[in-house]
Amino acid sequence: MMLNVVSFEEAMKITEEKFSLSEQSTERLSITECIGRITAEDIAAGESIPPFDRSTVDGYALRASDTFGAGESIPAMLDIKGEILMGEQASQPVSAGECVKISTGGMLPEGADSVVMVEHTEQTPDGICLAFRAVSPFQNVTRKGDDVKKGQTVIKKGTPLSSRHIGILCALGITEVLCTKKIRVGIISSGDEIVPVEECVPLGKIRDINSHFLSALMSEKGCETTEYGIVRDDFDSLYATLQKAADECDVVLISGGSSAGSKDMTATVIQKNGEVFFHGIAVKPGKPTISGRVGKAAVFGLPGHPAAAYLIALTVVLRLIRKLTGEDITPFTLTAELTKSISSNHGREELVPVILKSGKAEPLFFKSGLVSLLCAADGYIIIPRNKEGLFEGEKVSVHPF
Amino acid sequence: MMLNVVSFEEAMKITEEKFSLSEQSTERLSITECIGRITAEDIAAGESIPPFDRSTVDGYALRASDTFGAGESIPAMLDIKGEILMGEQASQPVSAGECVKISTGGMLPEGADSVVMVEHTEQTPDGICLAFRAVSPFQNVTRKGDDVKKGQTVIKKGTPLSSRHIGILCALGITEVLCTKKIRVGIISSGDEIVPVEECVPLGKIRDINSHFLSALMSEKGCETTEYGIVRDDFDSLYATLQKAADECDVVLISGGSSAGSKDMTATVIQKNGEVFFHGIAVKPGKPTISGRVGKAAVFGLPGHPAAAYLIALTVVLRLIRKLTGEDITPFTLTAELTKSISSNHGREELVPVILKSGKAEPLFFKSGLVSLLCAADGYIIIPRNKEGLFEGEKVSVHPF
Repeated sequence: MMLNVVSFEEAMKITEEKFSLSEQSTERLSITECIGRITAEDIAAGESIPPFDRSTVDGYALRASDTFGAGESIPAMLDIKGEILMGEQASQPVSAGECVKISTGGMLPEGADSVVMVEHTEQTPDGICLAFRAVSPFQNVTRKGDDVKKGQTVIKKGTPLSSRHIGILCALGITEVLCTKKIRVGIISSGDEIVPVEECVPLGKIRDINSHFLSALMSEKGCETTEYGIVRDDFDSLYATLQKAADECDVVLISGGSSAGSKDMTATVIQKNGEVFFHGIAVKPGKPTISGRVGKAAVFGLPGHPAAAYLIALTVVLRLIRKLTGEDITPFTLTAELTKSISSNHGREELVPVILKSGKAEPLFFKSGLVSLLCAADGYIIIPRNKEGLFEGEKVSVHPF
Repeated sequence: MMLNVVSFEEAMKITEEKFSLSEQSTERLSITECIGRITAEDIAAGESIPPFDRSTVDGYALRASDTFGAGESIPAMLDIKGEILMGEQASQPVSAGECVKISTGGMLPEGADSVVMVEHTEQTPDGICLAFRAVSPFQNVTRKGDDVKKGQTVIKKGTPLSSRHIGILCALGITEVLCTKKIRVGIISSGDEIVPVEECVPLGKIRDINSHFLSALMSEKGCETTEYGIVRDDFDSLYATLQKAADECDVVLISGGSSAGSKDMTATVIQKNGEVFFHGIAVKPGKPTISGRVGKAAVFGLPGHPAAAYLIALTVVLRLIRKLTGEDITPFTLTAELTKSISSNHGREELVPVILKSGKAEPLFFKSGLVSLLCAADGYIIIPRNKEGLFEGEKVSVHPF
C-alpha cells in the first residue's frame, strides 16, 4: 500500500472532520461524579446569588438617608425594631427613623438600604441606636444578584468540570449536570516480538510497553479504556480483534506494525474492515501513523516506539477525543526561551520534549526509542515544518504535559 | 478565646511541622492503578534499556573496520552469514569479513559493532554483501543502556505518578510500585443557617456549598474524602462529630463557625478535644482559619465563605497533604504581567484570583462571598504582606489551578 502522507496539521483536521459527537452520547451526572467531564449544555442560574440583599458586617440595617449629616457629635437616633440573625428571614420592615440589629450575612429587611457598623453605634438602655457615622445607600451590603444574576450562564457548554465549578453549582442548588459520556478507547498491541509486561522476556523480544502506556494516558484524559492485549503479526487475528474493538469502542488504537516494512499489516486490515484516511504524517517522531474508520469507530495505527506513540496519542488522537466530547477550550500553552539551539531540517514538523526551568525551556534530544525521556520532560514544543531549527534564546510555545 | 494570628507562611510551616508521614501509610499498587499516587521509594532499573545493542536501520551488521576505505567505486565485500529479525536473539556471531542481515530494532550479533544501511549495499547472487559506504563504530546502533542503565534511579521517591511514568515502568518490567496511601479527609459543615444542597432552601438560609466544594477539591488532589454533613451550632453535636471524623480520617476540615463572633465554637471544640495551634491567619481572604489537632488527625477550621475556604484548602491544607504523602515537587508557577494595578494595604498577604490571557494576568477583584469568581479564574497570585499593592505591567508569579 502506498504511503499517503499528510502534514501534522492536516492529520488533526482530517480525523476531526470525519467524526462527530452523537446526540445519544450524553448523560446526567450528579455533582459528586462530574469532575473531569465535559458539560453538554450551557448551565444557567435559576436564581440570583445572593438571593437577597445581605449585610457584610455586624451592625444596624436602616435607611441611609436617616444617617445623612450624622457625626461624632451629632449622632442619628433610630428606634431598634428587632434583630436579624444570619439564616433568618427578615420579616420586620424598616421605616424612616427605624433600624434592625443585623449580623454579618444577615438578610436586609424591607425598607432598609444600608448597614451602619456596630463599632460606629451605641445602644441606649431604652432601645435607641445612636449612629455616629453617615452611611451611603447600599454601604456594607452585598446586593441581590451581585455574584450571579438569575438567568445568567454560569458554565458554558463544552467546559471541562473541575472542583472550582462545584461551588457555583451548589450555590445555585444544581445537583445534576448534563455531560457527554466518556469516550471508550480500545487498545491493541501488535507484533510477534512483543511480550506482556507481566511475563519474563526472552532476550531479543521486547515488553509490551504501549498497552499500559496508552491506556494510562487515555484514562488520565478522561476516557474509558479497554486493553485487547497483544495480537500476533497475522492478518486474521488482527482483523478479528480490530472488528471486536471497533464494535465496542469509539476509538481504537493499534500500536506497532505501522511502518511501511514487510510486517506492515495494520493499514491493510483497516482498509479491509473499513477505510483508511491517511497513512503517514510528516512529523518527527510519529511518521508511520495511520488514521481510518472501521464501522463507527475511529481507528489509529500508532508507531511502535513508545515515546512516538505517546506523543501522537497526546496530539492527534486527543484532538479527536476533544471533538467527540465537545470540549471547548484552547489548550493551555506557555512561552519560554530555549536554552539551546535545535536543528531540524526535515521538511516536517518536529515534536521536541522540553524541561522547564525557571521560565526557560531545555530541549531533550530525541531518539524515538527513548522511553525514559518523557518522565523527565515537562512538556513539548513543535518546530514548524518550514523552519530549519530554532535558536538558543528564541521564544517558544510550550505545551505542558 | 483570643485570636492567635500568624502570617500565611507561618501558618503553612506550623501545620507542616506538627504532622508527619507514618511508616505504615504505604501500599504496593499495580501500575494500572498508581496514576496520581506518590512514590514511597526510589525506583531503580533492574536491567538496561535497551537490553542489547540494537540496530536503528534495516541493513547489515558488521565490523566497522571492515568498511574503512570503502566507497562507490571500491565496495567492501562481506560474507552474509544469516539474518536477524526484530524480536529474535542473535545467535550467529560475526567475524572479520562477515556480516548478518538485520532489521530495524534487531539485536546486534556478537562481534558486530555497526550497521551499514541496506540502501548503501548490494547483495550478489552468491551471498556476498557489497558495502558502498564506510561506517564508524556504533553507527546506526542504539547501544545497550543508552536509554536507561541498570541500577539507575528512573523515578525518585516523592514523585506524583502520571501516565508518562508508565512507559518506563513497563519497559523495565516493573508491574508494582510502592506508593503512599491516599490521605483520608473528613469534611464537616457547621452552622444553623446551612441547608443541604439537595433540599429546598427557605429564604434567609443558605445552601451548604462547602461540603461538596471542599470534597471535590480534595478528591481532585488525590485524597479519599468523607462528608460528615451539616452540624448545628451546638457544642455537643460538633464535639461528637469532630471526634468521630478525627478517629476515621487523617485530616478534618470544618467550615463555617470560625469567625470570632458569638456563634464561634470550632476553636473551643478543637481545644476541648485536642490542641489549637493558631487561630487566625494574616491573609485575605481566609483570616478566620484555625489549625489544630484532635487525636492523630490534623484539624482545620476554615472560613464559611466558599471562595475563602477553597483558597485556604488549596494552599494551607494542601501543603500539609503534600507533606503527609511525601510529595517532593516544587509546585509549578508561571510568570505573567499584570494587566491592572491592585492596591493592597492590609499588612497581610492577599490571594488574588487571575485570568490568564496571552501571557498576561488579569486580576479578579475579590469579595470573599463570590463563588462565581473561581470558575472564571485560571490561577491566583499572592501579594506579599509588605507590599502596598502591585502595578500594572509588574511581573507576577501565577499559581495555576
